[in-house]
Amino acid sequence: MTTSTLTAAETEVRALCAEARNASRLLATLPTARLDEMLDEIAVQLEKEALAIFAANAKDIAVAEKTGLNKVMIDRLRITEKSLAAMVAGVRQVRVLPQPLGQKITEWERPNGIKISKIRVPIGVIAIIFESRPNVTIDAAVLCLKTGNATVLRGGKEAIHSNRALIEALQKCKSLPKGAVQLIGDTDRALVPFLCRQSDFIDLIIPRGGHSLIETVVAEARIPVIKHAHGVCSVFVHTQADLAMAEKIVLNAKVQRPGVCNAIETLLIDRTIANKFVPQIAAALTKAGVEIRGDETVLKLAKGDNIRAASEEDWITEYLDLILAVRVVDGLDGALDHLANYSSHHSDSIITEDATTAERYLNEVDSATVYWNASTRFTDGAEFGFGAEIGISTDKLHARGPMGLDELTSYKFVIRGTGQVRV
Amino acid sequence: MTTSTLTAAETEVRALCAEARNASRLLATLPTARLDEMLDEIAVQLEKEALAIFAANAKDIAVAEKTGLNKVMIDRLRITEKSLAAMVAGVRQVRVLPQPLGQKITEWERPNGIKISKIRVPIGVIAIIFESRPNVTIDAAVLCLKTGNATVLRGGKEAIHSNRALIEALQKCKSLPKGAVQLIGDTDRALVPFLCRQSDFIDLIIPRGGHSLIETVVAEARIPVIKHAHGVCSVFVHTQADLAMAEKIVLNAKVQRPGVCNAIETLLIDRTIANKFVPQIAAALTKAGVEIRGDETVLKLAKGDNIRAASEEDWITEYLDLILAVRVVDGLDGALDHLANYSSHHSDSIITEDATTAERYLNEVDSATVYWNASTRFTDGAEFGFGAEIGISTDKLHARGPMGLDELTSYKFVIRGTGQVRV
Repeated sequence: MTTSTLTAAETEVRALCAEARNASRLLATLPTARLDEMLDEIAVQLEKEALAIFAANAKDIAVAEKTGLNKVMIDRLRITEKSLAAMVAGVRQVRVLPQPLGQKITEWERPNGIKISKIRVPIGVIAIIFESRPNVTIDAAVLCLKTGNATVLRGGKEAIHSNRALIEALQKCKSLPKGAVQLIGDTDRALVPFLCRQSDFIDLIIPRGGHSLIETVVAEARIPVIKHAHGVCSVFVHTQADLAMAEKIVLNAKVQRPGVCNAIETLLIDRTIANKFVPQIAAALTKAGVEIRGDETVLKLAKGDNIRAASEEDWITEYLDLILAVRVVDGLDGALDHLANYSSHHSDSIITEDATTAERYLNEVDSATVYWNASTRFTDGAEFGFGAEIGISTDKLHARGPMGLDELTSYKFVIRGTGQVRV
Repeated sequence: MTTSTLTAAETEVRALCAEARNASRLLATLPTARLDEMLDEIAVQLEKEALAIFAANAKDIAVAEKTGLNKVMIDRLRITEKSLAAMVAGVRQVRVLPQPLGQKITEWERPNGIKISKIRVPIGVIAIIFESRPNVTIDAAVLCLKTGNATVLRGGKEAIHSNRALIEALQKCKSLPKGAVQLIGDTDRALVPFLCRQSDFIDLIIPRGGHSLIETVVAEARIPVIKHAHGVCSVFVHTQADLAMAEKIVLNAKVQRPGVCNAIETLLIDRTIANKFVPQIAAALTKAGVEIRGDETVLKLAKGDNIRAASEEDWITEYLDLILAVRVVDGLDGALDHLANYSSHHSDSIITEDATTAERYLNEVDSATVYWNASTRFTDGAEFGFGAEIGISTDKLHARGPMGLDELTSYKFVIRGTGQVRV
């Protein structure tokens, strides 16, 4: 890459990334106790810098209110004493998680006497491109540090003052090598494609955000990407379902927190029980304030102001809202066909008392997480017991589903010999 | 993607890829015994079709001779009775390898009673873009089939008749689902970027070939890529090396098969032993017909028609030939500096009798495979005991170093509950 044609902002991004690469080389050689010390110091430093963080956050909130950002977004943006304390507690939780680095994944000896060990090592430099929530800033930096990776963070412009204050607090930590956590302070969108081409400095890009951000990153990247894309999740209620359980799970998966990727957007109902279950679930959903987009059969079996016809588009839409697409299908095969065509392959669940049907569904549905008689809302690092997560991968390579610490590592083969050569 | 603007060749590629996607859905649901039956039939079918394969190969050889392809390339292209028998034997070897599909990688239960299993599954559709050698065609298809993946193969134009005959033999197998192994018969280079954008049909692209092929794939891909790029491998001879062992390993790593990615291109010699080891190794390399590109110190200590000055370019060049860049460095730190700047992070080896130095090297050199007192030539699936390899990944995500069957799989989380919902 010739540097003569770069803008000042691009030159700064290159410099930040180069520093991160240097830091990653150092981080990879440190004993893991040193990485844990950094996390201890970060927790303390965030508490010390609380006032500066609140002041910076107040600037973001003021801008957001002036530009008319909606209330939900402003709430996500706000750093309160409680949410800062939660961030600090999060750092301390990651601090005490078992350290994956240096772990021998496998080890064996060959007939010629060479000993091969497959050892967990850091990935290197991870760029994380995300949208507004400032807690992601600290989460991401700390998870990457725990696993010996340097980070280049690129947050949304709405949170820029907060992000700067948070990262300044981190960078004051004496235990942290220079460049280990970098923030791109310029929020010009044109820098995202540029960042995606820094293959000499960055080993992995994780985009977390809306469709257009992820499209841009995938199109521009010259670096491996692990997408944290959308979830069009579903529940299929089989003819042999316990309908009380089905109702409870559908409501939980749709209503408990509709704005997240593991909430369901689609309900599939076996035709043989449609007469009974469609009216039952429509009543329950209506009571919970859910709008229903139904196919022909659903529209015949349930009526109401909140019930309207589904279009083809509805089967692939992530509403992130109190809306549910409902379709009547012909048994397990009908459900499998629907999912092969429309599922985003994130999380899908079957409700049935029949083990044979359930096992066929679990085997044939090609999603990151497949459930039998449980809510899709469990697709989450904490619910899995990972202690922390960097997000939920919708890709199939390297990491699929909730990504914990192990997924932030790579490996290398270490081979010890006594002079062996190949014959 | 709008189809109205596609050329006829592009439309055909889309159709091939769509068939592969359909086949992959079926393959993912089959019992593994069915996959093994396919391999049995392929081995038989390749033997049956031998005459057709030889005839097709003869056409490629005739074209190659007419266009003046060099002798090494023609030899690689040629399918003899022996090399066809080796291909068939390769299929049978893969057939009897342990089946990774369905394996429980881990399994645990959460306090709420849900049971989580992490299960190996196929990746889906794997596109493999490779250059001339026809044995890669069968290897790649069979390794992917063993692991339940459909393949879209794109070979070089030099081997097109051979590849067509090989794939036609495969496609005659009754046990093989339609579309499970697809060959793009059109060798127009413009189709490579087009293939790299078929993200709705392809899950992974593996490019195996020269720099410009890999650059094109990385730049154009909208799909995860695992690169099989070049190896600038090295040996570092430390001050405490057994110099007889060092000589033996350097010669093996350079001379035994210079045209492969795990052969060394760089030799680093500790300054404290340069007076002794430079003349010793220069004499041995000269005798073996190796050209030396040395730094200043090397040029002072060794003379000959085959010894000339190294340029900066030499430290990053993959010669794939009887040429070796030789540099004198200041101890372990000098070697680590050199490798941080110039290694392609494929395979690097230290020769020393000092365990502390060796362990620091093994820890700090960030390469897929790091060696102590052994030849870099062991970076190979067969030498590792994997039974087979699809290639050697120079990436750090998903697969690093030799890729065996496990690396051709993904995983999914299968969760069994009894009605659990999230609170």
